[in-house]
Amino acid sequence: MEIAQNYMGPLATNTMLRINENGNVVGTIIVNCEGFPETTTLDSLTAATYSTHMRSLSHYAGNALKEIDVLDELVVLRLVSRKAEAVVAPDHEFHLIVVMRRT
Amino acid sequence: MEIAQNYMGPLATNTMLRINENGNVVGTIIVNCEGFPETTTLDSLTAATYSTHMRSLSHYAGNALKEIDVLDELVVLRLVSRKAEAVVAPDHEFHLIVVMRRT
Repeated sequence: MEIAQNYMGPLATNTMLRINENGNVVGTIIVNCEGFPETTTLDSLTAATYSTHMRSLSHYAGNALKEIDVLDELVVLRLVSRKAEAVVAPDHEFHLIVVMRRT
Repeated sequence: MEIAQNYMGPLATNTMLRINENGNVVGTIIVNCEGFPETTTLDSLTAATYSTHMRSLSHYAGNALKEIDVLDELVVLRLVSRKAEAVVAPDHEFHLIVVMRRT
């Protein structure tokens, strides 16, 4: 599987390859803090759409959590639809998005 | 566990009781289509906060999914934080929200 990537370092690349080895994974995206896909195994249009939406979703979710408990922090947001499953793991610098087939 | 409820019918009540039997469940909320908690096992402030946020989150997520694939539909949205876990299952008339302890 080809990884269209800017320079992310071997650790990030290895993690993406490991995740992509799972048969149910359609692709992974690493989104930078400006909301643009930095590295992805998906086509750029899909990656851009997922990046925009999943990032704002996790941003909103994080803020909502802070309203319930100021000390709380979002770890993972999982979105299950009829056709696919998307997971976003937010971090200060990068967000990792994994898109999966429904099992 | 007391259920502060408007009339929801025995089926909804039984489902909520069944979910609440799980030791990790902190509480459940049924949100009506206007975004107000209809039935809940949580205190009303927490229920109201979760209702507002989880409903807009699932609304946003549903729309984002439709932009990726028009025929797709949100089934479940799961939010994992450091301290808790919240799941929302959206439906046309009601949304079911379950708040859980992290295991």
